[in-house]
Amino acid sequence: MAELSVRSVLVTGANRGIGLGLVQHFLRMPKPPQWIFAGCRDPKGQKRGLHHGDTGSDLPCVGSAEVANPASIKAAAAKVGEHLGGSGLNLLINNAAILKVTTLETETLEDMSEVYTTNTIGPLLMAQAFLPLLKKAAQGSPSSGLSCSKAAIVNISSSGGSITSLYTWEICQATSYRCSKAALNMLSKCQSLAYKEHGILCVALHPGWVQTDMGNSPVDESVQGILKVLSTLSEKETGAFLDWEGKVIPW
Amino acid sequence: MAELSVRSVLVTGANRGIGLGLVQHFLRMPKPPQWIFAGCRDPKGQKRGLHHGDTGSDLPCVGSAEVANPASIKAAAAKVGEHLGGSGLNLLINNAAILKVTTLETETLEDMSEVYTTNTIGPLLMAQAFLPLLKKAAQGSPSSGLSCSKAAIVNISSSGGSITSLYTWEICQATSYRCSKAALNMLSKCQSLAYKEHGILCVALHPGWVQTDMGNSPVDESVQGILKVLSTLSEKETGAFLDWEGKVIPW
Repeated sequence: MAELSVRSVLVTGANRGIGLGLVQHFLRMPKPPQWIFAGCRDPKGQKRGLHHGDTGSDLPCVGSAEVANPASIKAAAAKVGEHLGGSGLNLLINNAAILKVTTLETETLEDMSEVYTTNTIGPLLMAQAFLPLLKKAAQGSPSSGLSCSKAAIVNISSSGGSITSLYTWEICQATSYRCSKAALNMLSKCQSLAYKEHGILCVALHPGWVQTDMGNSPVDESVQGILKVLSTLSEKETGAFLDWEGKVIPW
Repeated sequence: MAELSVRSVLVTGANRGIGLGLVQHFLRMPKPPQWIFAGCRDPKGQKRGLHHGDTGSDLPCVGSAEVANPASIKAAAAKVGEHLGGSGLNLLINNAAILKVTTLETETLEDMSEVYTTNTIGPLLMAQAFLPLLKKAAQGSPSSGLSCSKAAIVNISSSGGSITSLYTWEICQATSYRCSKAALNMLSKCQSLAYKEHGILCVALHPGWVQTDMGNSPVDESVQGILKVLSTLSEKETGAFLDWEGKVIPW
């Protein structure tokens, strides 16, 4: 397996779970990225923004509450651009998301709206704002095909967003979450078509069902799987919906 | 082919296009429904609400601007309940929808939000509000299986919401619309699972690509197809995504 080799990566929702696990794994790589931008919801206190790079200064937030705030996102993109100097951003991982434990009966306009805004609109706005930096990374790469080491948008989706399988419906209906993830899968497909000409790979990834507050080992397993999958992706997977073991999930 | 035989039907977005066509066809049936509730956006002026029933009075709006207004929907459900007396509602057709001609680049938080609210949250809220009347219709029916003549929710979706095919991407990206329809398909599947036990059939239907302001004949063709498809649906199609000719569309 080729090691994932990126100079720069940004992960949203990096304060816990998969997002934090991804950042930790990037830091521990034999040859870690030169820039790791880790966005979280609360830049103060324990769950603060992480930043590993040439300056050590903090980034503007790009966590689950801010991914749908256009001003906050634009500020983050400008700041990231400054840090990178003339370089582009190789990898944007849209991981920030929320889940409301609801039934079809208890869904409300407010919950449907809030979940969609964070889980679907957020990744769209993030990709729009970071597109110039992703394009720059693609243009600066010597390789002609698509890869995550060159330039990619990875949207962390969920098998719960598979309309075909409606995975775990009996345990948790969460229609607002499922609708937002089905829409995120659609967005990923749209992005793959629109951004292919710019040399940017786009995928939707199901990270596994990780108990994010119950110890590191399931997160580690999932994160290792995700990084392995990312390292293998090429042109033929752009627009796909894959799990953390690389298996295709039906829409 | 068995004729669709319903005592009561409600169609949202009935001021034009498919919605108006459906109402006109219901009125023209040899044995029309006793109650046809037609919701539109503007109850004043030319595009006013239609009502065919025992009282002749107008309904509260349930058009594309109001389908996501919980108060407006509850008022409509109460009014419909009054008209129906002790009877239930056989058929709820969630047709009201909006489309913004956008590219992935020009999508905004506001457009994404507005389109989702009308196209996805609206049908969810409509189904919640009319659920007691749909249940009543199902309970009052002598047949044991599912059918549109008994009790059904029909969500007018679009093949543009097929993540598999991304139909007409080259002509119109409209990511906000595609995301909302993929999410509506997910909602339809969720509804089919949650409402099956109540005897309510749920489907997502693609009405064809109808040029709604350019003459009646394509609308007629589409509407005739839809009504024919509705008349044939049974338990095995609940949760499906079908076009106006009854063909299954991939998610």
